[in-house]
Amino acid sequence: MTFERPNIARMQGYKPGEQLDGGNIIKLNTNENPYPPAPAVTEALQDIDTAALRRYPPPTASTFRQAVANLHGIQPENIIATNGGDELLRLALTTFVSPGACIVTTQPSYSLYPVLAEIQGCEYREIALNDDWSMPQDFLGQLEQTAASMCLLVNPHAPTGQLLSADYLETISKGFPGVLLIDEAYVDFVDEDQAYSAIELATTSDNVLLLRTLSKGYSLAGLRFGYGIGNRSLIEPMQFKTRDSYNTDLIAQKLATAAIQSQDYARETWKSVRQERKRLHTELEALGFMVAPSQTNFLLATAPAGSDAESLYQGLKQRQILVRHFQQPRLEDKLRISVGTPDENSKLLSALAELL
Amino acid sequence: MTFERPNIARMQGYKPGEQLDGGNIIKLNTNENPYPPAPAVTEALQDIDTAALRRYPPPTASTFRQAVANLHGIQPENIIATNGGDELLRLALTTFVSPGACIVTTQPSYSLYPVLAEIQGCEYREIALNDDWSMPQDFLGQLEQTAASMCLLVNPHAPTGQLLSADYLETISKGFPGVLLIDEAYVDFVDEDQAYSAIELATTSDNVLLLRTLSKGYSLAGLRFGYGIGNRSLIEPMQFKTRDSYNTDLIAQKLATAAIQSQDYARETWKSVRQERKRLHTELEALGFMVAPSQTNFLLATAPAGSDAESLYQGLKQRQILVRHFQQPRLEDKLRISVGTPDENSKLLSALAELL
Repeated sequence: MTFERPNIARMQGYKPGEQLDGGNIIKLNTNENPYPPAPAVTEALQDIDTAALRRYPPPTASTFRQAVANLHGIQPENIIATNGGDELLRLALTTFVSPGACIVTTQPSYSLYPVLAEIQGCEYREIALNDDWSMPQDFLGQLEQTAASMCLLVNPHAPTGQLLSADYLETISKGFPGVLLIDEAYVDFVDEDQAYSAIELATTSDNVLLLRTLSKGYSLAGLRFGYGIGNRSLIEPMQFKTRDSYNTDLIAQKLATAAIQSQDYARETWKSVRQERKRLHTELEALGFMVAPSQTNFLLATAPAGSDAESLYQGLKQRQILVRHFQQPRLEDKLRISVGTPDENSKLLSALAELL
Repeated sequence: MTFERPNIARMQGYKPGEQLDGGNIIKLNTNENPYPPAPAVTEALQDIDTAALRRYPPPTASTFRQAVANLHGIQPENIIATNGGDELLRLALTTFVSPGACIVTTQPSYSLYPVLAEIQGCEYREIALNDDWSMPQDFLGQLEQTAASMCLLVNPHAPTGQLLSADYLETISKGFPGVLLIDEAYVDFVDEDQAYSAIELATTSDNVLLLRTLSKGYSLAGLRFGYGIGNRSLIEPMQFKTRDSYNTDLIAQKLATAAIQSQDYARETWKSVRQERKRLHTELEALGFMVAPSQTNFLLATAPAGSDAESLYQGLKQRQILVRHFQQPRLEDKLRISVGTPDENSKLLSALAELL
């Protein structure tokens, strides 16, 4: 006897990356920023008056949204604050995808999407990336055939690190009659010379929703804060209808605002991550890995011929180094490695050299 | 052109109580605790190391759940931590109520329930309370006729303040073939001589889910923290399938744990609220209000003959005192007044005396 809905009873939950305790563990498995949050975040924490917690928080995080609007040169009405980026994904499905309708993403993609589809009781379809992880030439044609309500593209892509241009995204959005959700969880780590931005596309189109998170770029995975950017016709139903009435708390709103206002600090951490990404890429190749070019804070590396990705994952774990190994088609022979501090990366490289 | 699902396009969102700014406002409209959170909450805040925020938080708030388990003498497996009590309500519908199925509550009840039903695309039915706000004698019979998947009872009840006994709830749970969700948002304010507890019922039944929140009893509405108690067969699908992977943040987990561990402090605030509830009840009656007996931290008071509840609400607002007035059947002639500090309550009573 179960009271679960049939679709819930059938499904498996999302499996988050391992979160082992212990001070000596080098954790390169869940794409956290290796640097701490900005000093202004600590100051904001120290300024919290706990007496204010007895009252409900500002329901739509208006101060945070104004700070984001200033940063991107857009209006607060184009922004929704969410309890992590994951909440925005859930809200988007709740609001725009009916049970029985269909969502589409690429294969591979973020492994949370099929879980959200099962919860919503909608269909989940994947369109395979090419072998070099680029988009198939007839992506839009394949997408049309699914009659999907929503297409989710991670950009830059997880777990491969590839970046699609804003022009390409615009072409997809214009050719697709549903909502195009662009999951930009890793956008802060894109090389500056790419001059990538989809913000204008999101605010001027009627069907493009951008996801941003403070988990990675702002070193605040523990705070659960993200936001969505889009046309008011997409933002408002989530803001005023489907969102939990007070979805973000007072402390998180204040700390997130401080982080967003600390752009100089954040940019320094992104620069360091990009430098280390380059070094790690080069040195992994020198060890025999095949490494996909990455615009994120992680690398997807194919284990060298004669070695086995799962064994390398296990060997690293025995040495207190966690990376991610996916038991998934096209990924079994690879490791996804978050870029750590220079010291963490050097220890990873030494451990891999020993194991190989 | 809208991308909203038809049920979302049709619906109105939940209207939270007013949250006016300004230091001089006496806010007796959203049932917040008039006292600040426990000193241990402030200490926990001061102990936060912001560097820890770069990592994901414990996904199921295990330390918090252990503290709650110790408090209630139950197991952590019977507990789910949620981003406010509202998240538990949403999760319960997502997990146990299919689109097209039905949820039932009383009339009147918490005005969020019909909004959640619209989002989930399920039917919403109400069974009217008697004129004295007691349950109709054939409640179970009326409930059976709806073939509902879930019945939601606020206990003690909002907005009337009535308490149902645990024995009565047990009878309902045994006669009802769906999930009985008991929303105990206000349970901390029940008089101790009532010796009310539904915890044993929740952990020994297979279909009873209790909702608790730290918003009211622990003065933490701004923190967004609640929890559910139930049989593992009800808790686990929400814990491991339908919940956002990291639904509560690290800071909130630590502060909520400190609050739960500060029982002596919390009990003192509940005692003060009960004392003031009694005084406010007596003095409102002396002004000509008809006041329903309340086991919560608010009173539902019918405006005296010859006066008008809406005008009283507006008159109080002009005097910087906020109470709640519902434009709803059976409630238009009433005010819902949160119990404040002795000083706030005295100012309310003086203002009402002037207005009448």
